[in-house]
Amino acid sequence: MSLDAILARIDTDLDPAIARLFALLRIPSISTDPAHMRDVRTAADWLRDDLASMGFQAAVHDTPGHPMVVAHMDGPGPHVLFYGHYDVQPVDPLSLWHRAPFDPALEETPKGTVIRARGAADDKGQLMTFLEACRAIIAETGSLPCKVTVFLEGEEESGSPSLVPYLREHADMLRADLALICDTGLFSDDVPAITTQLRGLLGEEVVITGPRIDLHSGMYGGIAMNPIRVLSRILAGLHDDQGRVQVPGFYDGVEELSPELRAQWAGLGFDDTAFLGEVGLSHPAGEVGRTGLEMIWSRPTAEVNGITGGYTGAGFKTVLPAQASAKVSFRLVAGQDPLKLREAFRAWVRAQLPPDCSVTFHDHGASPASRMDITHPAFEIARRALSQEWPGEAAFIGGGGSIPVAGYFKQILGMDSILAGFGKDDDAIHSPNEKYDLSSFHRGTRAWARILTGIAGA
Amino acid sequence: MSLDAILARIDTDLDPAIARLFALLRIPSISTDPAHMRDVRTAADWLRDDLASMGFQAAVHDTPGHPMVVAHMDGPGPHVLFYGHYDVQPVDPLSLWHRAPFDPALEETPKGTVIRARGAADDKGQLMTFLEACRAIIAETGSLPCKVTVFLEGEEESGSPSLVPYLREHADMLRADLALICDTGLFSDDVPAITTQLRGLLGEEVVITGPRIDLHSGMYGGIAMNPIRVLSRILAGLHDDQGRVQVPGFYDGVEELSPELRAQWAGLGFDDTAFLGEVGLSHPAGEVGRTGLEMIWSRPTAEVNGITGGYTGAGFKTVLPAQASAKVSFRLVAGQDPLKLREAFRAWVRAQLPPDCSVTFHDHGASPASRMDITHPAFEIARRALSQEWPGEAAFIGGGGSIPVAGYFKQILGMDSILAGFGKDDDAIHSPNEKYDLSSFHRGTRAWARILTGIAGA
Repeated sequence: MSLDAILARIDTDLDPAIARLFALLRIPSISTDPAHMRDVRTAADWLRDDLASMGFQAAVHDTPGHPMVVAHMDGPGPHVLFYGHYDVQPVDPLSLWHRAPFDPALEETPKGTVIRARGAADDKGQLMTFLEACRAIIAETGSLPCKVTVFLEGEEESGSPSLVPYLREHADMLRADLALICDTGLFSDDVPAITTQLRGLLGEEVVITGPRIDLHSGMYGGIAMNPIRVLSRILAGLHDDQGRVQVPGFYDGVEELSPELRAQWAGLGFDDTAFLGEVGLSHPAGEVGRTGLEMIWSRPTAEVNGITGGYTGAGFKTVLPAQASAKVSFRLVAGQDPLKLREAFRAWVRAQLPPDCSVTFHDHGASPASRMDITHPAFEIARRALSQEWPGEAAFIGGGGSIPVAGYFKQILGMDSILAGFGKDDDAIHSPNEKYDLSSFHRGTRAWARILTGIAGA
Repeated sequence: MSLDAILARIDTDLDPAIARLFALLRIPSISTDPAHMRDVRTAADWLRDDLASMGFQAAVHDTPGHPMVVAHMDGPGPHVLFYGHYDVQPVDPLSLWHRAPFDPALEETPKGTVIRARGAADDKGQLMTFLEACRAIIAETGSLPCKVTVFLEGEEESGSPSLVPYLREHADMLRADLALICDTGLFSDDVPAITTQLRGLLGEEVVITGPRIDLHSGMYGGIAMNPIRVLSRILAGLHDDQGRVQVPGFYDGVEELSPELRAQWAGLGFDDTAFLGEVGLSHPAGEVGRTGLEMIWSRPTAEVNGITGGYTGAGFKTVLPAQASAKVSFRLVAGQDPLKLREAFRAWVRAQLPPDCSVTFHDHGASPASRMDITHPAFEIARRALSQEWPGEAAFIGGGGSIPVAGYFKQILGMDSILAGFGKDDDAIHSPNEKYDLSSFHRGTRAWARILTGIAGA
């Protein structure tokens, strides 16, 4: 088997690979929106068919929510499980998109050619890099050098309600020597990275109820408690003046960064101001005294992701609403127990309710943070593979976002995960005008080919 | 002219009067919603035609916004100007209505027959009491005992942007000896009232902008400033722990209640707990140490009428939004300058912005509070008329809501206003399932007949 021949085939076949990705991007598989339920299944079917066309034993498995795509192909080397997700975020506000979010196109930009569409970077473009690597290896050699299981989820953007039950029920089918996960980013344009620690996520919706009906603020303003006022007070108290989260016990179990990692991260030369400058900001808004990388990689946070109450349409309505609600999320780090924090948060909110107000909570998922054991030799193989495709040397880094599946793979299947992804900070994932650099797609495919052949030979 | 004959005719003609009101209630004249612009005009045309059918010289006058309906009829006595408004509030949330909001019906309730529809009480049912009184007097006597101008507005629920320019331009046509305004309520089910002081209203929309695009809270959570956090902090600071508004200078010029009015209001036996109990509340939420009537009649307030930011749809989205906004209103009392307070509020908000955040404001109207000179003899005539129609003796009271037109009539046309209205606390104006008691409609019509004949003879 010649790695050079495989890489050459990937280069030659780039156009049809882009066409396949576009076909997948055209399917509006928004998992959080019930109106798109059938579109999510259509994306699953498309992936099953594509995997089957390469010779995988591929199937779409039903769950109580959106389906899982699972595909197997035997091989001589160790067994790897590849994970990606084929669902995408909602597209609102639609008015800010330059083109229709599900009409993908290549666009020339000052920083190179990009693939523009919802899901281009998160995560359809990324998962297709692995499938294209497999396709090239199979085309060139007739088989894969490792035993490969592909496992694609359709609920990653909506809290993965079916994932844990599915992993528990199908543990024997899915357990491998190592997981490969493609849902992360480069450290910078020229420096690839393998993410070895990830924050967890706790999602809560808080609904405050005051009067039993909406009231006229002329008749009741001044005497009736307004739930927006109550909610604002509670949310305003989430952080103190130093940016520290005020839920009791929130920092219990949170460890300081090791001197080694602190030194390694300092060496990355991360520029807070440049990072924030790309999105129109300039001042780090987290805990006073922490570095920017700590704020996004190793410190837990509290954020309000949505708030609504009263009249929010055009014009003005002098109403005192019966309800106000907020979606609140916490990014968690190793040592924090999501379920304990959920109870602490709820108790903290309840303790602040004035007379006449009640609260209900809705659970929007809880996943712990995860840290990998980077002494496994495959981590160094992957680091070298990435270093060969990008100008800079690849680094082991932290990740601010949650990829709960990595934690579940460890807990339920006993596997570590290599989190190698090729997104960039300006990809606008979860925002209007999401894109994925064509160079990320191309180099990523080549990197997976190197990793698979490398692991096989290790 | 026999008052008894006029009252008898009102009783006999109640059914056709209800049918006329229903025709008006079927027109969805929501002035704040651009989608209903034509409906607002349809309501104006309907009223013009109805007034013309009685013999008024009636016309619909264009403005830059919604039109004014103006009608004149000569008479021997003093000149009165009647004011009402034919626009209505939005109907959201529609799901809470028991029947379609613009499909009026009589409903039997444990407390008597009610007219159920958006606008039944605010203000179509109320304005029709005056028109029905005129119709009965004209039918019985062939003319009116006073010179009457009817002036009906279509922008009252959306800040009345055209009112002041219109009053200034048409002052000579509209100036009368006295204004009669029907847009207020009874003091209690059996005790009618004339409102002699009304709070003003200042409406502001605050839009806080942070990052230039929506951000992923995994990538940016902890380092990027979240505009919802900033907005929550500002709104939470609107009141101190004693319920006092914290905008600097807010209480400048606010007078304490006179001992006479304090004694009169105490004599009304207002029950805070019962008043709040009707809407599922029990604790007065205003300034500590103030009575419930002070909180709603003579003390200024700050309220958040609407708030929105981030993802508010079904499910969850881990977004840090670029913007968050709130609609904030202030109820004002005599002595407060709305325009000065607008600037004070804006300066107070700006002073609290952290780095990286900006704010824009949208003006949603500003009207001062008003107090009437109740020594004018017509006030006592009206008080007696109301006392004859309801079981209890009528009282001079305050009003918590804004009826800015009363202030403008004083400032621009030099007229005092008799604010006699027949709404009840449980009318659910501005809420789902608005209603107007049939007894209010019937007694109100009779009361106006008494007032018009009384003023003519004074």
